[in-house]
Amino acid sequence: MDQKSAINELKALSTQIHTYQSIQTLLHWDAETYMPEGGISPRSEQLATLASLIHELKTSKKFEQNLKKLIHLNTGKPTALGKKLSSPEKVMVREWRKEFLKVTKLPGDFVKTFSHLTSEASQVWRLAKKEDNFQSFAPYLEKIIHLSRKKAEILGFKNHPYDALLEGYEPCMTEAKVAVFFSKLKKAILPLVKEIQKKKTIDDTFLQKTIDHDTQMEIGHLLFSKLPLDPKHSRLDLSSHPFSLALHPLDSRITTRLIPNAFISNIFSILHEAGHSLYETGLPLEYFGTPLCEAVSLTIHESQSRFWETFIGRSKSFWKYFYPLLQKKIPHLTKVPLNHFYQAIHRVTPSFIRVEADEVTYCLHVILRFEIERELIAGTLSVNNLPDAWNDKMKELFGITPPNHSMGCLQDIHWSLGDFGYFPTYALGNMAAAQIFQAMKKQFKDWEDRISSGDLAFLRTWLKENIHSLGKTYSTENLIKRVTGSVLSEKAYVDYLKEKYK
Amino acid sequence: MDQKSAINELKALSTQIHTYQSIQTLLHWDAETYMPEGGISPRSEQLATLASLIHELKTSKKFEQNLKKLIHLNTGKPTALGKKLSSPEKVMVREWRKEFLKVTKLPGDFVKTFSHLTSEASQVWRLAKKEDNFQSFAPYLEKIIHLSRKKAEILGFKNHPYDALLEGYEPCMTEAKVAVFFSKLKKAILPLVKEIQKKKTIDDTFLQKTIDHDTQMEIGHLLFSKLPLDPKHSRLDLSSHPFSLALHPLDSRITTRLIPNAFISNIFSILHEAGHSLYETGLPLEYFGTPLCEAVSLTIHESQSRFWETFIGRSKSFWKYFYPLLQKKIPHLTKVPLNHFYQAIHRVTPSFIRVEADEVTYCLHVILRFEIERELIAGTLSVNNLPDAWNDKMKELFGITPPNHSMGCLQDIHWSLGDFGYFPTYALGNMAAAQIFQAMKKQFKDWEDRISSGDLAFLRTWLKENIHSLGKTYSTENLIKRVTGSVLSEKAYVDYLKEKYK
Repeated sequence: MDQKSAINELKALSTQIHTYQSIQTLLHWDAETYMPEGGISPRSEQLATLASLIHELKTSKKFEQNLKKLIHLNTGKPTALGKKLSSPEKVMVREWRKEFLKVTKLPGDFVKTFSHLTSEASQVWRLAKKEDNFQSFAPYLEKIIHLSRKKAEILGFKNHPYDALLEGYEPCMTEAKVAVFFSKLKKAILPLVKEIQKKKTIDDTFLQKTIDHDTQMEIGHLLFSKLPLDPKHSRLDLSSHPFSLALHPLDSRITTRLIPNAFISNIFSILHEAGHSLYETGLPLEYFGTPLCEAVSLTIHESQSRFWETFIGRSKSFWKYFYPLLQKKIPHLTKVPLNHFYQAIHRVTPSFIRVEADEVTYCLHVILRFEIERELIAGTLSVNNLPDAWNDKMKELFGITPPNHSMGCLQDIHWSLGDFGYFPTYALGNMAAAQIFQAMKKQFKDWEDRISSGDLAFLRTWLKENIHSLGKTYSTENLIKRVTGSVLSEKAYVDYLKEKYK
Repeated sequence: MDQKSAINELKALSTQIHTYQSIQTLLHWDAETYMPEGGISPRSEQLATLASLIHELKTSKKFEQNLKKLIHLNTGKPTALGKKLSSPEKVMVREWRKEFLKVTKLPGDFVKTFSHLTSEASQVWRLAKKEDNFQSFAPYLEKIIHLSRKKAEILGFKNHPYDALLEGYEPCMTEAKVAVFFSKLKKAILPLVKEIQKKKTIDDTFLQKTIDHDTQMEIGHLLFSKLPLDPKHSRLDLSSHPFSLALHPLDSRITTRLIPNAFISNIFSILHEAGHSLYETGLPLEYFGTPLCEAVSLTIHESQSRFWETFIGRSKSFWKYFYPLLQKKIPHLTKVPLNHFYQAIHRVTPSFIRVEADEVTYCLHVILRFEIERELIAGTLSVNNLPDAWNDKMKELFGITPPNHSMGCLQDIHWSLGDFGYFPTYALGNMAAAQIFQAMKKQFKDWEDRISSGDLAFLRTWLKENIHSLGKTYSTENLIKRVTGSVLSEKAYVDYLKEKYK
C-alpha cells in the first residue's frame, strides 16, 4: 500500500495549501470590501506571510518525495506505484507535478516580495484612480513590471516572455496563438461596429436616469435571489470594482458596484460574478484540497461568467422574465416596452470603460490591453509612455480618446495586482462561452421558454454536470471539445455577434 | 552581540505569531458579521489550521533555545546575556517566558481539537439561542467543559481547577480572591438594589419606542464619529452580539446590534466596544509583534470598555453633549427634557440580559456566571442541571425567573467559545474602571465642562499615555496602582454606585 501512503500524504499537504489559500482569499475579499483604509500595511504583511507559507509547502521536500514516488518529474510518466492509482488520483498527480515544476522555479523571497509589493500597489492604484494621478502609481507599476519580467525569465519561455506569464492563467496559450485569435476577432468586429454605427440609434436615456443607492442594492439582491445561487453559501456586497472570490465551494462571495446613472451596469456585474460563483460552488466538494476541486483555467472561468452575463443575461428570454420585476423597482420603466428596453441595452457604442462595454466592442478592450502588456513585458514600451500608448490604441480601435487616465490606463485593478497575462482570458472566455452556449441550445430546445418563465436552475445543473463538477480533470482544450464538440475558436462568438447585430 | 541575535530571533518569531493571530481575528470577525451561514465547516478548518500553526511556533525549539539564552526558564531570572537587554526587551522576555511555560503544557492536538470544537459549538449555540433549544447545545457544552477541565489539569492549579482557567484571562486572580471581591460586591449591591426599588419609578416608555433599523444605524455611526476613534483604522458593523476585535493597532473593528424597541442599547454597546477599540489602537505600534504591543489582561481591557460605557457614557456631561444630537435623530425625544431622560437611563431593574443590565445590577449577572462556572468546572454541577441552577440563582440574586433559556443560560456566546474564567473580568474591570475614573477626575478638574462641550479626545490621550501605550509593561495590579495610587478593590465602584443612586 505504498502508493496509498504517498497519495494520502500529498492530499494532506495539498489540503493544507488550499486551506491557506482560502484564508488568503478572505484577506483579499476583506481588503476590497470592509477593511478600514489604514489596515493596508498590516494586511500586506499578513498576505505576504501566507504567501510564503504556501510557497514553503508547495516546494517542500515532503511534497517532492511523495510526488516522485508516483510520477517521473522530468517526463510526467507514472512510476510503477503511480500506475496503481485510481483515475481521479492520476489527475491529481498530473496537476501537482505541473504546479510543483512551476513553483519550485520561483524562490520564496521572490514570492514574498511580489505579494508585498502588489498588495501595497493595489491600494496606491485605488487612490491614483480616484485622483486621476497616473504619476503616483507609475513607480509601483514599474516595479511590478520589472518583477514580472524577472518572473518570466525564471519560469522560462520559448518565444516571448509574455508566454511564461500567460501560462499562469491559461496553460494552453502562447502570445502567438492569442495574437492569431485576436487578429481574427479584430477583423470581424471592427467592420461590424462600423456597420452598426450607421444604423439609427434609439432613445436610451431611461437607462441613464439616476437610481438611488438603496433601490439599486434592492435590485441587486432581487436578481441575486432569482439566480440559481445558494444563499447559504454565497453573498453579495459592494466594492469599487466588482469581483467574485470563493474561499471554498461552501463559501463564495461576489460584489457589485453601483453607478447612480447606470443601473444596468449593476445587473450585468452581478450576472457576471454569479457565473464565476456558480463555477466555484459547483466544484466537487468531496475533492476539496486537490486539483479536482479547482477550476480548469481562467478561460473556462471567464466562459462561465460571460455565459451568464452575455449569453443568458442579454437574451430576450431572460428579460421577458426579469423586466417585469425590474419595472416594479424602477417605476419610470413601466413606460418603456420590453422591445424598446431590449434594443437599448444592446446599443453598441465605442466607450472608455471595459467593464461597461457592450458585447460587441468588449473584446476590443481586451485586445488593447493584450497589445499593450505584451510590449510592457517585452520592454518595448515604458511605463512613462503607457498613457500615450493607451490613448493611441483607443483612437485606433474605438476612434475616441479618454478624457483622463482614470477612464483610461488606470481603470483596471489587474496590473496593480501583478496580473500580467490575465486580460486575454477575458476574450478567450467569451469565445468559449459562445461555444458552450451553442452546445446548450442544442441540448435544450425549449431553453427560451424555460428561461422566460424564470427557470434558470436547469442551466446550473447542466453546467455543473459538464464543467463545474469535473474540476481540473480535463485541460481547457479538451474540456471545450468535450462539451461543444469542437476546438476553441472565435467562430461561434463572431457568428453570435453577427447574427444578433446584423 | 549574542543577546542581540537571540532577541531578534525571538522578535521575529513573535511577530510571525502575531501576524497569524491577526489573521485569526479576521476569520472570527468575518464569521460573526458577513460569512454565509454555510461557510462554517471550512471556517472551523481554517481556524484550527491557524491555531496549530501558532501553537507550533510558540512551542518551537527555536523559540525555546533563544529564550533560554536570555532567561532561566525555571526561576525567571535573567541569564548573563539577558542582563544586557534594554528594559523593554526585558519585559518582552519576561512575558515570552510566561507564555512559553503555559503553552508548552498544552499538546498541539489538544489545541486543534479545542479550536475545532468551539468554532462549531459557537454556531450551534447561535441556532440554539435563536430557537430556544438548550438540548441541541448541551452535548457541545459538555464536551467543552470536559476539555476545559482537562485543560485546567494540564495547566495545573493549587486550589481550584478554575484558577488555571482564570489565569488565562487575569493572571493576578484566583477563584478564592474573586470569591472575596464578589461577596463584598453582593453585600453592597443587593441592599442598594432593594433601596432603589422602593423609590418611585419615572416614566421611561419613550426608551421603548420602536426606532427603525436605518435610524438606529445612523445614530450608531454618528456616535462612532464623535468618539475619539480614527475612522481610518476602525469600523462599525452589525452582529448578533456586540464585540470588538482588533487585527492590529491599525485595524480595529467593533460591532453593535440593533434592538428595535431599545435604541439605548445600541448606544451603550458602541461606547463599550469603542473603549476596547481605543485600547487596541492605542497600543504602541512600534512594538507590534511583541508583548509590549499587547493588552495587560482582560480586567484592564474591560476597565477601558466600562470606563467609556459606564463612567463617561452614563455621565450627565456626556448627555449634555450627545442628547441634543440624539434628539435630532429621534424626534419624540424633543418632548423629553434632558433631566428626565438622564433619570430614565439610570433606572435600576432586575433584568434577564447581562448586556442590557443597568450599572447597579450588572455585577450581579457576572457573579451569577462565576458561581455557576466554577461549579461546572469543578464537576459539582452537570450540564443537565445548568438551566435549573441558572434559574435558581436568578431568583436568588434578582428575584425573577427567565421565561426561556434564550434569555437565561443561552444568552452569552462565551461558553460556546470555551471561555470559562472570562466572566469575572467583567466585574473586575468595572472595579478597575471606577478607580481609573476617580484618578481621571483628580487629574482633570474641568472634565465635566470638556465632555459636555464634546471634547472626548483628552480622555483618549490620558488613557493612551497612562495605560494603552504601556502594553504589557506592568501587571494588572501594578498598572492599577501606578494609575490610581491604590490596589485593585471594589471600593471605588461601590462608592460610585452609592453616590449616584442614593
